[in-house]
Amino acid sequence: MSLDTASPFDEIIDRRGTNASKWDLMERAFGVPQETGLAMWVADMDFRAPDFLQAAVQAQLQKANYGYFCGLESFNEAVHWWMSERHGWAIDTDHMFTTYGLGHGIAMAIQCFTAPEDHVAIFSPVYHEFAIKIGKTGRNLTELPLVNRNGRYEMDFDAYEARMTGREKMVLFSSPHNPAGRVWTQAELAQLAAFCRRHDLILVSDEIHHDLTFPGQTHLPMPVACPEITDRLIVTTSASKTFNIAGTRCGCVTIPDPALRERFGRFYRGFDINPNLFGIALMEAAYSPAGAAWVDELRPYIAGNAALFAEGIAAIPGLSAMPMESTYLAWVDFSGTGMAREEFQGRVYKGAEIAATPGHTLGTGGESFMRFNLGMPRARVQEAVERLARAFGDLQ
Amino acid sequence: MSLDTASPFDEIIDRRGTNASKWDLMERAFGVPQETGLAMWVADMDFRAPDFLQAAVQAQLQKANYGYFCGLESFNEAVHWWMSERHGWAIDTDHMFTTYGLGHGIAMAIQCFTAPEDHVAIFSPVYHEFAIKIGKTGRNLTELPLVNRNGRYEMDFDAYEARMTGREKMVLFSSPHNPAGRVWTQAELAQLAAFCRRHDLILVSDEIHHDLTFPGQTHLPMPVACPEITDRLIVTTSASKTFNIAGTRCGCVTIPDPALRERFGRFYRGFDINPNLFGIALMEAAYSPAGAAWVDELRPYIAGNAALFAEGIAAIPGLSAMPMESTYLAWVDFSGTGMAREEFQGRVYKGAEIAATPGHTLGTGGESFMRFNLGMPRARVQEAVERLARAFGDLQ
Repeated sequence: MSLDTASPFDEIIDRRGTNASKWDLMERAFGVPQETGLAMWVADMDFRAPDFLQAAVQAQLQKANYGYFCGLESFNEAVHWWMSERHGWAIDTDHMFTTYGLGHGIAMAIQCFTAPEDHVAIFSPVYHEFAIKIGKTGRNLTELPLVNRNGRYEMDFDAYEARMTGREKMVLFSSPHNPAGRVWTQAELAQLAAFCRRHDLILVSDEIHHDLTFPGQTHLPMPVACPEITDRLIVTTSASKTFNIAGTRCGCVTIPDPALRERFGRFYRGFDINPNLFGIALMEAAYSPAGAAWVDELRPYIAGNAALFAEGIAAIPGLSAMPMESTYLAWVDFSGTGMAREEFQGRVYKGAEIAATPGHTLGTGGESFMRFNLGMPRARVQEAVERLARAFGDLQ
Repeated sequence: MSLDTASPFDEIIDRRGTNASKWDLMERAFGVPQETGLAMWVADMDFRAPDFLQAAVQAQLQKANYGYFCGLESFNEAVHWWMSERHGWAIDTDHMFTTYGLGHGIAMAIQCFTAPEDHVAIFSPVYHEFAIKIGKTGRNLTELPLVNRNGRYEMDFDAYEARMTGREKMVLFSSPHNPAGRVWTQAELAQLAAFCRRHDLILVSDEIHHDLTFPGQTHLPMPVACPEITDRLIVTTSASKTFNIAGTRCGCVTIPDPALRERFGRFYRGFDINPNLFGIALMEAAYSPAGAAWVDELRPYIAGNAALFAEGIAAIPGLSAMPMESTYLAWVDFSGTGMAREEFQGRVYKGAEIAATPGHTLGTGGESFMRFNLGMPRARVQEAVERLARAFGDLQ
């Protein structure tokens, strides 16, 4: 956790003025000044792209032709290798559809498998884009709030029975969990599977953070943890979070069940979807032994960031961060300050000049929280902690 | 037309084994051997990417971060500059949606503005993907055959009255025309506009080849030629054909009418579509003064290729090529040979070892034709002519 530990992730690269949404839009979004602010909202990382990704871009430059391309066989092999090797999931890539990023994949799943009058359930608070997509597709939202048990989120399936309207057709599930970094256990996943079966729900398991578990934690892919649920399962994955390539827009939607897959395939083909050259090239380069080695350096670095951040937050009266098991997203509760939302957010934005995601946008249960992105050099995490300590200093 | 004229387009780059669909799939598609065959089907060009595109990729490499991006303002300005400067179309980019290539944009337009029981009309023969998309979206096809008048396609609106079923809701129009390279006149476009109004059709004007007119020819963008039709007009454009960047998957759908645009916008947002980093970067780099200068070198080069090809085809008894006004696609009629389709195609594939697009796949009227892509160094066009002359040599 020391700043002297040499790590390639310690390098500060200035993304201001490079069209990075996280840095160049924070003033517009939160009034956090671009020059002096610290961007901790949009979920990408401020690290330099590793050599194996740079080499993949370089290879395209060398070819010097960006016309129609083929050769997805090696891409599929890379995905298969990665899922088998890293997650014990012997994915059949014939069951997989590439999409323009996972948001697109999830939106298509909603459109394909539900009707406008249907409800789609989420376990809130959760990745704000779930509810946004449910809204944009004109479907209805059913919130199933997570329970905060000793600072740790759990699902409460008994309580959910009363919340189900009978019109739910699908549930969107974040595994590992964004924003609180839970790595769900086998028992929890089995309960979820039973719940989906009981209510006849299609389960969209969004596993985009699967690689970013902390040392000692093991992500369980839904098709591995609960093979009995594969008749109603859609798994979404991407290299975009792990390798910081969200801008290239490439995701994977995997549907093991033949009937669901046939239905989705017909829908998908009706939009003439073909992957893009750089998205494919970068994902293929990422899903490699070099990519695995890089992730194995990244995971403890992020865990170190999280430990440093947790320690700093714990020292500020009234603030508490949920213990993280995965992801680079920290979920901080400000309820102990007794402040209204406007006040603690104002202190973060104007006082600390930190652009963090307001928790209420992640749904019921998130009102007193803010989400902080720790995918950054450790020195900046240290700086964030110091800024927050100053902004909430009068409480000490 | 001489081979001694120094041109950057004369450089032969070998795309075999680089995952270029045109070269690496021709054996699978037509049995044309990869080692010795000549690829003249898939509509991209075999030229080295110009420096301004390479610089755009290099700039991304330099940034070394492929996360979430913003900054579409400069992209929109570039599109506006290009359409105004090159086509006299002062496009309002607030009317524009970016899509994952134009196929995706056209498929979305069909899905958004027609119902499954509706018919969509095309003027055949035409870009085969129109009919394929109508099929994949589950809509019904109405073919309105072009009339071949003295080796030149024209629309015959009087004849079309009898072919309309009353269930048509949309027409897909290729302007300039793929495969025959027609640049439609003001009078023709006005007739089309009147036809669309008379039959209450939405007009999708696919102007992807707009930049590739031959010297002396002027493409008329539909919103400029027939402003009276903008209440039912969808214009699709892209830099992908002109600058050979189809692999990056970036297209533009422009809808001037507020009500249609609102309807499409709602549909579009329901799929969570965001453009990809390299697609945007390359299109922006292309729509620039450097891009304009490059296109102004490309156009006469392609016209020279077309002249050489036409001369060669004219010398082969029974073959005739339609006079081209635009595009790099030559449309060759084999009906004068008296051969059955299998025979003339066999001579092209097995005899000449040329992978060309079979004309019957472009719809009614295309049965006796094949489409040859001339977007290649001139020496290869020369070679194609020689191969065809040999393959059909017994006719001389």
